[in-house]
Amino acid sequence: MGMAYFDNSATTAVCEASVARMMRVMTEVYGNPSSLHTMGVRAEQEVAQARAEVAALMGAKPEQITFTGSGTEANNLAILGTAAALRRRPPVAVTTAVEHPSVAACFDELEHQGWTVTRVKPAADGTISPERLAAACTADTTLVSVMAVNNETGARFDIPAMVDAVKERAPQAVFHTDCVQAAGKLLLKAERWGVDLMSVSAHKLHGPKGCGALYVRKGVRLLPRMLGGGQEKGLRSGTEAVPAIVGFGAAAAAVPSVDAQQAHYTVLRETLIAELQTLPEVRWHLPPGGVPYIVHLSIPGIRSETLLHFLAAREIYVSSGSACSKGQHSAVLEAMGLPAAEIDSSLRISFCYQNTEDEVRALAQALRDAAATLQRRRT
Amino acid sequence: MGMAYFDNSATTAVCEASVARMMRVMTEVYGNPSSLHTMGVRAEQEVAQARAEVAALMGAKPEQITFTGSGTEANNLAILGTAAALRRRPPVAVTTAVEHPSVAACFDELEHQGWTVTRVKPAADGTISPERLAAACTADTTLVSVMAVNNETGARFDIPAMVDAVKERAPQAVFHTDCVQAAGKLLLKAERWGVDLMSVSAHKLHGPKGCGALYVRKGVRLLPRMLGGGQEKGLRSGTEAVPAIVGFGAAAAAVPSVDAQQAHYTVLRETLIAELQTLPEVRWHLPPGGVPYIVHLSIPGIRSETLLHFLAAREIYVSSGSACSKGQHSAVLEAMGLPAAEIDSSLRISFCYQNTEDEVRALAQALRDAAATLQRRRT
Repeated sequence: MGMAYFDNSATTAVCEASVARMMRVMTEVYGNPSSLHTMGVRAEQEVAQARAEVAALMGAKPEQITFTGSGTEANNLAILGTAAALRRRPPVAVTTAVEHPSVAACFDELEHQGWTVTRVKPAADGTISPERLAAACTADTTLVSVMAVNNETGARFDIPAMVDAVKERAPQAVFHTDCVQAAGKLLLKAERWGVDLMSVSAHKLHGPKGCGALYVRKGVRLLPRMLGGGQEKGLRSGTEAVPAIVGFGAAAAAVPSVDAQQAHYTVLRETLIAELQTLPEVRWHLPPGGVPYIVHLSIPGIRSETLLHFLAAREIYVSSGSACSKGQHSAVLEAMGLPAAEIDSSLRISFCYQNTEDEVRALAQALRDAAATLQRRRT
Repeated sequence: MGMAYFDNSATTAVCEASVARMMRVMTEVYGNPSSLHTMGVRAEQEVAQARAEVAALMGAKPEQITFTGSGTEANNLAILGTAAALRRRPPVAVTTAVEHPSVAACFDELEHQGWTVTRVKPAADGTISPERLAAACTADTTLVSVMAVNNETGARFDIPAMVDAVKERAPQAVFHTDCVQAAGKLLLKAERWGVDLMSVSAHKLHGPKGCGALYVRKGVRLLPRMLGGGQEKGLRSGTEAVPAIVGFGAAAAAVPSVDAQQAHYTVLRETLIAELQTLPEVRWHLPPGGVPYIVHLSIPGIRSETLLHFLAAREIYVSSGSACSKGQHSAVLEAMGLPAAEIDSSLRISFCYQNTEDEVRALAQALRDAAATLQRRRT
């Protein structure tokens, strides 16, 4: 069999619908959306369609969507932009210890600016209950940021319940959620959940790299981080990245049924677990209630990188933790209190809807071979 | 004849080489450059090739190039990033009154933060001499930013001479140049000119919208504005926009001979001037020594927008000033001291190497018809 790509939480293949629309726009509708003539108007219409498609993906209205250059930029705008706008409120923030680096680094920066930042640690199983989060909040809490799905363990956080719990203790808090690992695979309902800000990224759901989006609830104030021509209603200046934006729109519109996807991922995960029953040394890190499309495990005794290269030689691609912390120790796994031997040997397998059971069986076979070969070598 | 696009300073059609490479990368090399496996390494190699191509375009070394999401972001990073890094130096900056909004807005922000900002006005013909710029500098000047080519009038500023003149008075000043309207049409020599920072944008030279680049001379300090996974050596976090980046690289590599381009633009400009000699009411705004690919004129009595729509009905696309100041009065033309009647009727015609003399003749014919029709209507 050919190659099997199980690193879909790092990035995904761009889908046909996305590539086709990008091609068309680049060759036929190449105007600048800010230009007043027909060529500009047509480009603006393409952006408007994509905005509606991404809004639908997020459970929001088109006018609530700001396009950015990445999920990272959406997170930076949400957190640093809100903090800059709320200079008169107490500089007090609550987040978790398991956020993506693009969220974590923003809170480090706020701390540097004098903010008090509480980072709620997960339980040993990777979960964080709404009560645990709310307990860290007070009436002074100004900004809260919690991801919907953890990018390393697949732990799922109950955002709507968290919003309710937080707003009870901190009614004025602005609530941001990083939904980069949830978008396209779980139903997002920005408006219904009551969040103030929600980030997503195109390239995690078969759109192109180079485009993110931020949902901003009406009435929420934030200051732009990119200054200039005033595009995106002044929130993000710079000529709109029309190719990437329409690619995002097409990918969002092409997302298959979320229920069908979950069923498919559950089968893939069950298959992997069943196939690896003969390998008792595997440590599964599957947070209760976690998403079925991220499977995190360790084979103590085999370093992640060694295993990763063993698999890559068979054209099977997985990841050691997240792609975003290249070569660094996982802060997420450390926050969960995993033993060093399990952190050093951790593996993230992340599915997309194109992965098949046969591919999963090939992965399991390769992991069994790896355990036999690499562990033998060690003894 | 078909349509004629003369709004190439707003944005350009994406060239075949760029589209082809983007297609290939999106369908075949879709890994995350931060991923450790083969798929990631191959994506990283594509980014490295593009970095070398863009470096060559700018007269720089690959390791001096940081990819951003737009020219605007490159300008923001250069100016606000430098200001943040130089907090111990005097908060004193010099720029011009005719910069692009993405530069001008950054200096407005710095002024808001307490900086002293001097904005050098051009002479009535749109030019700014190195002496005029240097006269605004003192030993305390920390940051200087001057564009290479003005986006509305085509005025060309002598950046290497300006660097020398500025550094004589302000040896410690960091010199940034926005080369967005020069890149791909004029030779850029970042290293030889001695600038510290240089910005360019892909979509002005037949690459895709959604990618810019910043040259940072070795030893120049600036703080990142996008925080997270530490991509681009920590200067610009966020998954690399691989499709847009390789599209930029391909477009940079496909740029035709700069000398041949200048000769072609000069012929086009001369043709336009000759064809419009029968229209004595035309006011030409052609700064001495200006680039031949931007032609700025006014036909007093016909509002820009009216003329623009008249031309668009014939599928001829030009612009009223810059696309980036949609619906607003041009600060550039005001700084030049043009009479209101000329500002209100101003037109920017900007060429690319695909424009032909026949297209220019069709434009001239349309302008003559417009003058006859629209001016008659007014009387």
